[in-house]
Amino acid sequence: MLETKTLQELADFLGGVVRGDAHVTVNGLAPLEAAGPDKVTFLANPKYAAKVAETKAGAVLMASGGESFGRNVIEVANPYLGFAKLLTLFYTKPHPPLGVLPEAVIGTNVTLGDGISIYPGAVIGNNVSIGDRVVIYPGAVIYDGVVIGDDSIIHANAVVRERCRLGKRCKLQPGAVVGSDGFGYAPDGSSYYPIPQIGIVVLEDDVEIGANATVDRAALETTLIKRGTKLDNLVMVAHNCQIGEDCMIVSQVGIAGSSKIGNHVTLAGQVGVVGHVTIGDNVIVGAQAGVPGSLAGNAYYSGSPAMPHKDWLKSMGVLPKLPEMRKKLSELEKKIAELEARLVKE
Amino acid sequence: MLETKTLQELADFLGGVVRGDAHVTVNGLAPLEAAGPDKVTFLANPKYAAKVAETKAGAVLMASGGESFGRNVIEVANPYLGFAKLLTLFYTKPHPPLGVLPEAVIGTNVTLGDGISIYPGAVIGNNVSIGDRVVIYPGAVIYDGVVIGDDSIIHANAVVRERCRLGKRCKLQPGAVVGSDGFGYAPDGSSYYPIPQIGIVVLEDDVEIGANATVDRAALETTLIKRGTKLDNLVMVAHNCQIGEDCMIVSQVGIAGSSKIGNHVTLAGQVGVVGHVTIGDNVIVGAQAGVPGSLAGNAYYSGSPAMPHKDWLKSMGVLPKLPEMRKKLSELEKKIAELEARLVKE
Amino acid sequence: MLETKTLQELADFLGGVVRGDAHVTVNGLAPLEAAGPDKVTFLANPKYAAKVAETKAGAVLMASGGESFGRNVIEVANPYLGFAKLLTLFYTKPHPPLGVLPEAVIGTNVTLGDGISIYPGAVIGNNVSIGDRVVIYPGAVIYDGVVIGDDSIIHANAVVRERCRLGKRCKLQPGAVVGSDGFGYAPDGSSYYPIPQIGIVVLEDDVEIGANATVDRAALETTLIKRGTKLDNLVMVAHNCQIGEDCMIVSQVGIAGSSKIGNHVTLAGQVGVVGHVTIGDNVIVGAQAGVPGSLAGNAYYSGSPAMPHKDWLKSMGVLPKLPEMRKKLSELEKKIAELEARLVKE
Repeated sequence: MLETKTLQELADFLGGVVRGDAHVTVNGLAPLEAAGPDKVTFLANPKYAAKVAETKAGAVLMASGGESFGRNVIEVANPYLGFAKLLTLFYTKPHPPLGVLPEAVIGTNVTLGDGISIYPGAVIGNNVSIGDRVVIYPGAVIYDGVVIGDDSIIHANAVVRERCRLGKRCKLQPGAVVGSDGFGYAPDGSSYYPIPQIGIVVLEDDVEIGANATVDRAALETTLIKRGTKLDNLVMVAHNCQIGEDCMIVSQVGIAGSSKIGNHVTLAGQVGVVGHVTIGDNVIVGAQAGVPGSLAGNAYYSGSPAMPHKDWLKSMGVLPKLPEMRKKLSELEKKIAELEARLVKE
Repeated sequence: MLETKTLQELADFLGGVVRGDAHVTVNGLAPLEAAGPDKVTFLANPKYAAKVAETKAGAVLMASGGESFGRNVIEVANPYLGFAKLLTLFYTKPHPPLGVLPEAVIGTNVTLGDGISIYPGAVIGNNVSIGDRVVIYPGAVIYDGVVIGDDSIIHANAVVRERCRLGKRCKLQPGAVVGSDGFGYAPDGSSYYPIPQIGIVVLEDDVEIGANATVDRAALETTLIKRGTKLDNLVMVAHNCQIGEDCMIVSQVGIAGSSKIGNHVTLAGQVGVVGHVTIGDNVIVGAQAGVPGSLAGNAYYSGSPAMPHKDWLKSMGVLPKLPEMRKKLSELEKKIAELEARLVKE
Repeated sequence: MLETKTLQELADFLGGVVRGDAHVTVNGLAPLEAAGPDKVTFLANPKYAAKVAETKAGAVLMASGGESFGRNVIEVANPYLGFAKLLTLFYTKPHPPLGVLPEAVIGTNVTLGDGISIYPGAVIGNNVSIGDRVVIYPGAVIYDGVVIGDDSIIHANAVVRERCRLGKRCKLQPGAVVGSDGFGYAPDGSSYYPIPQIGIVVLEDDVEIGANATVDRAALETTLIKRGTKLDNLVMVAHNCQIGEDCMIVSQVGIAGSSKIGNHVTLAGQVGVVGHVTIGDNVIVGAQAGVPGSLAGNAYYSGSPAMPHKDWLKSMGVLPKLPEMRKKLSELEKKIAELEARLVKE
């Protein structure tokens, strides 16, 4: 059963204002086209404003001053954020604390917080500390000496290796690996001697790691991912890297060893970053780009090798013209030779 | 012990015709060079036709009208398909139904079909429905409310999250993840608010997901992969995507959110597709290409950004000539300046 | 408690020579700037030689003949290798043999070596052979008929499928998959018929597989990774490939089916190699390169499509100049037309 709320209650929850009938009740969210009178819908992109006239929704969440077309409206500063918060309100429930379920395996000297749930098939090592309300799903493996902060969620078959530390509200999607050995070998003539990777990984608060993504432990010290940063599925962060706060690292990005990423950086899908470089704050790197060196902050880069995005757009625009350019160059060469010949003759 | 079959039995099984001695018996398959008289071999690629003269195989599977060089031949319309079917006949056995093995964990209100096998260490949540002859290997985790169709196979440590639905004859390789949260966040000033991902993933019949590949659940509705489509290892399908029937999505491809792929599309290895685009039926996209916008159907594209394959081949052919072109351009510029100077003087 | 060693003991262990006080004792390693008198530090890169004058370390590991600045020195042929060996000496301990822990699941007819550790939640199939001192962490799944050589380490949730064989001292990071089905399908009109993948994977001695990397089993015979080769996280090796000895396959590389890589090859991050090609010994392929055909040995390639690295550097240098070149080309064309017109008039 979905809970029912009045528009006034929703406006209060979001810090917004109702225009229209504040007593109308709704029980969930739906897109503009699909919403019925018991649902709230939202207008985040102004180019769809005309659709508001057609919607059958009980109310429309929109920015202040938008055209209501006679609909009930909840005005908020950021309708997309409001939509996210209402989704949370209507559709997510606090996980019921189940405690340690029978087939879970718990090591010695483990500290368990209040309100936790540890599912069958999860395996917790020795000397582990697990915060309040943490949920650990089946098959997740927590090695010895790990610390997991309050309200973190470890999905099925994720792995956290020895001594790594997770902050509060961290989330590991299924199969994520935190603390695998860094790829470090010392050449020994023709073969490679494995360098023990004795460091750790630290995830600060509100860090999320996507499904089957991997974050390697440092060789000596710490691979660090700072507060609020989100890694998408199949991302690779190599040993000794440092990633700043509130970054978006999109799927299949790879960051080589010892690189430092600033705050509020976005690396789009399949980007590669070489090792030992620095990327400044607020940088955006376009999909599939290859970053071969350090990048100054507050700029948008694309291409492999990466260059300023505008330059890349221009160069890419020329790429399909190359065969024609080459042909023209030959023609001009010929014409010039003819002109020169004629001038000599004269 | 391998089973023994006469050539006539094999021809009947494949809908083919024997040329030569139909009573000869064989017990398996081998390549042209390695096959002995107790093995069938096959000629799929006509450029190896001469090797038939040398083979010691008991019979050769080939297209109608091929040169037999005096060998026993089974003629079929599609020898490569015939080879695949004989491999299945000789080397694969129906999985013996083991039931629920002791160390498997089964939730409440779970429906189990006939002839199933659930291995130790597999964990099945509540309200799950499992079809006939399904096999679930150790460490696989099936969350609450999942539906798995008949004859599906879930390999070790694969994960299917809550409420996702798999059709008949689906196969998940080890570590595959179906239904991880989509990468959706609403910017909230400088940080990111996680948008609950309340949708699901639906895999229709005969869909296969490669090892450690990930398919994210939709934000609101359904990430859909249609009948017969195969995903290779380490592929990423983001939330709200729709992939048509009988597609081949090769290893390490990434498809961003809400994109729609038509039927019978091939995306070669490491291709990236941006979000919110449409790719038409029968498209082929070459390895490592980047698809920045929608692509019309029935065509072959390559490059990053993707362009028609033939254009890309031509442009790539010019790439190594660029330094020479640049030099020549400078020379021509100089010559023209000289010509102009001479004309002025005259 | 860290163990204490004299400089003479360390020099003897490494086959080096002490310059200075051989009786000084140390208990670990630290970087040049951070090391105190109870630590050894090392100078691997001569450009940091001046820092030796400032270090507070008890001793400096360096190449023969380096400037000691009055510090105690251990001279060795290869200081980076020496550093790796001392890390191993000080910080790694042999895994205490735990035997088969209670919640581990062991099949029938399993051979277990001496000094093994099999953790809770690990599942071992039937007819498996496990060598001496092997460690199998929680959630790892070993299918029927697998052979694992002495001193190998299988981390949590790694999977080795049926009949695959691992040599001695192999290491699988968490989530690694060995022996998943190759991506082989026979087109059957518009849909795809799965070709049974009945081959195996063989990893020779000292092979390491990164977290969530995948190595597919061969269709008929063997996918082979030879002695000493290391695969980083999220690497994909397709069916029937052969990779030589002492190769470094960096993160997110994909190698398509049936390709052969020589000895001592380095493929940098995100490289893609198409199927059925050969790469010679001692090849280096730069990050994100795409290898569309066979590559001769003893050379360095970059780019997609890959070309000799020097050529690629030159071409990439021209890329940002393309718009300017195109403009100049138009200007020259115009000037030539003017010159031609003037010559006609005259």
